[in-house]
Amino acid sequence: MEQQMYKINSNRLLSSIQTSAKYGTLPNGGLGRVALSKEDQQIRDLLKSWMEDCNLDVRVDDFGNMYGRREGKDPHASPVVIGSHLDTQPIGGKYDGVLGVMAALEVIRTLNDEGVATNRPIEMVNFTNEEGARFEPALLGSGGIARVFSAESIMNTKDKDGKTFGEELENIGYNGSAQNRLSDPYCYVELHIEQGPVLEDSGASIGVVTGIQGISSLEVTIHGRTSHAGTTPMKNRRDAMLLAAKMIQQTYKTAEHIPDLLVTVGRIQASPNVTNSLAEQVVFSIDVRHPEDTVREQYTNEIKEKISTLALVEKMDMHIKDIVEMKAEIFAKDIVEGVEAAARKHGYSSKRVISGAGHDAMYMNKLAPTGMIFIPSIGGVSHCEEEFSEEADIEKGAQTLLELTLTLANRDKELQR
Amino acid sequence: MEQQMYKINSNRLLSSIQTSAKYGTLPNGGLGRVALSKEDQQIRDLLKSWMEDCNLDVRVDDFGNMYGRREGKDPHASPVVIGSHLDTQPIGGKYDGVLGVMAALEVIRTLNDEGVATNRPIEMVNFTNEEGARFEPALLGSGGIARVFSAESIMNTKDKDGKTFGEELENIGYNGSAQNRLSDPYCYVELHIEQGPVLEDSGASIGVVTGIQGISSLEVTIHGRTSHAGTTPMKNRRDAMLLAAKMIQQTYKTAEHIPDLLVTVGRIQASPNVTNSLAEQVVFSIDVRHPEDTVREQYTNEIKEKISTLALVEKMDMHIKDIVEMKAEIFAKDIVEGVEAAARKHGYSSKRVISGAGHDAMYMNKLAPTGMIFIPSIGGVSHCEEEFSEEADIEKGAQTLLELTLTLANRDKELQR
Repeated sequence: MEQQMYKINSNRLLSSIQTSAKYGTLPNGGLGRVALSKEDQQIRDLLKSWMEDCNLDVRVDDFGNMYGRREGKDPHASPVVIGSHLDTQPIGGKYDGVLGVMAALEVIRTLNDEGVATNRPIEMVNFTNEEGARFEPALLGSGGIARVFSAESIMNTKDKDGKTFGEELENIGYNGSAQNRLSDPYCYVELHIEQGPVLEDSGASIGVVTGIQGISSLEVTIHGRTSHAGTTPMKNRRDAMLLAAKMIQQTYKTAEHIPDLLVTVGRIQASPNVTNSLAEQVVFSIDVRHPEDTVREQYTNEIKEKISTLALVEKMDMHIKDIVEMKAEIFAKDIVEGVEAAARKHGYSSKRVISGAGHDAMYMNKLAPTGMIFIPSIGGVSHCEEEFSEEADIEKGAQTLLELTLTLANRDKELQR
Repeated sequence: MEQQMYKINSNRLLSSIQTSAKYGTLPNGGLGRVALSKEDQQIRDLLKSWMEDCNLDVRVDDFGNMYGRREGKDPHASPVVIGSHLDTQPIGGKYDGVLGVMAALEVIRTLNDEGVATNRPIEMVNFTNEEGARFEPALLGSGGIARVFSAESIMNTKDKDGKTFGEELENIGYNGSAQNRLSDPYCYVELHIEQGPVLEDSGASIGVVTGIQGISSLEVTIHGRTSHAGTTPMKNRRDAMLLAAKMIQQTYKTAEHIPDLLVTVGRIQASPNVTNSLAEQVVFSIDVRHPEDTVREQYTNEIKEKISTLALVEKMDMHIKDIVEMKAEIFAKDIVEGVEAAARKHGYSSKRVISGAGHDAMYMNKLAPTGMIFIPSIGGVSHCEEEFSEEADIEKGAQTLLELTLTLANRDKELQR
């Protein structure tokens, strides 16, 4: 039997997104709402009240992940899970993560309005610390339930000021119970902005995400020797800053000739970090991404070697720490095809894409068959205040999510990976 | 009449230096006692009590500079001023600044022990924020009384956390009165460690400092565009970090072929400074020093041009701010010769040197005839925990200071510049 066609309330969805942007507003229209901050607490409180208004059964697990459950006709069926995250970069946009959570809420509101009963339960979710901007690495909430990280290591993760994830979670009152973790989901679907230029360039409205490219995240620490800037002859110096500059340039230069490789040095910390002393120590990050694991691994090995050689030449000690190493993730065949079918049913143009960014879907794919829906990011920019998506695309994205959620929530058969 | 020869108490001086190293002790034997910190307050309280024990008239001016005055036979004569500073770098040594203050105290203790009355008053001084590690620029205390900086600009100077000099001075209780500023000194003499390798290499015990090399301190701010590290194609990026790395390397490279030029990039700050976003902004410092002003100015202009060209090529905005511009300072002829004579009288080998570092003596030279005495720094290192000077050299330096102070405090004639 052909599934009935329900319409999400696009104005209500846009209004939810606008309201959520009141918590952590930045001067140029962006958002600064890092994980477990006061602003994160405020948006969580709001989401909780909205989920309760929808008669959802709201619960919080020990990583602070928030769930809202809408029961299905079969109480024993495993749930269809939809959602994303509400934390942002320190200087971020108002769609990254937010879209997926608010669209999940809109799906549930629409089903409630229409009085639709599904066979399976539907759970919406807001994952903790997706961005990793405050607590590194990223994806601690979804990584916790997928057992990529141990609960202990997550709780002890520290921010730059030495505050632990565990303390800060307790401080904002979202330290729930391990019993509340998501268990045995049927599948996970996440709607997200693309954060890149591919969809806009191609003219397609819906990105059918086939997987997520792999990531290596390294941390390089150089040990120089601090001394007085005005008295230390140039030939006697062991200047960690100069070596860092050479290494960073090498990092980018080595990436130049490798198609589709993305390399970023986003973080740097010098010590003592004063104008009139040489740097004793410089620490910087290297983020490496590529759709093919072998290419990424080859580059990572190459740059490690080149950096080590530079340190040898300059006679300084250094070490390279592997912070994150995530293989490329392939999404479930049935969900990828489901996204395509849902878009087609509504007449939306779609295109298969691979995700450049990491997402909670990456770890959820380890727990259950998973997929993602992308909508275009204007100018391809994200993690900045200018991040923007058109209202028409937001509507299409949410409508596709509703369509697919309904299909999955009434499906019996196991999903193909 | 030949001046009588008095001996400083070398053990007492070494003990004062060791005691002062208890405030801000670092794990490897160095000191972290930045200006107006709790540790700075503690060492000031100790110095105050020691000066009072010497029956000095203790006063504090509006910049927090501390004075201890020992009256002379002629109450109308202008004072001989000796001293240095007690603040340190965040990771500094226990001799930089401390030696000059503790040796000045030892000179006064010796004169008291011996019951010597001088014609002129002698004032010892501890200047505020010499290092500039917390409040930039450096030398705020001496620069204040020499009217290089206005009182208002000093009070409003902020540290990295946005705290003002004025508030923090009040917090540690050392906000004195403008009436207490040093007025009309006869001369200023400062004993200091060399902080470079010249004396040790030459085998001389006493550095007769003829002047201080000029300093240019610049701050470069690059405006890039932050966006997602995993989704922004390399060709679409405006990555402030990559441009900073290129500029820093250029800064050092351009200095390579200019003899005696010292160039240091000691401070860097990226924003948002996270691993998975491109740097929106990078700010870094350039410290340039040379004994000849024309060479320094020529390099500074050259590097400004080269940096601007790099920004143009990468199509990013940037600006360069002149933070400090200090011409080379030539010390008073009579004091330079006085240091030489005092060392000779005790049979100490000496060598004329130019100071690579800035010192309070640089600004004091604008107020009154000024000179400096250096002693060797082992390995030429300073602004680090390994900073060290031999006990024998410390004794010789203090003895030379006592000898010269006595000569100057009994001298009538005006000093030749």
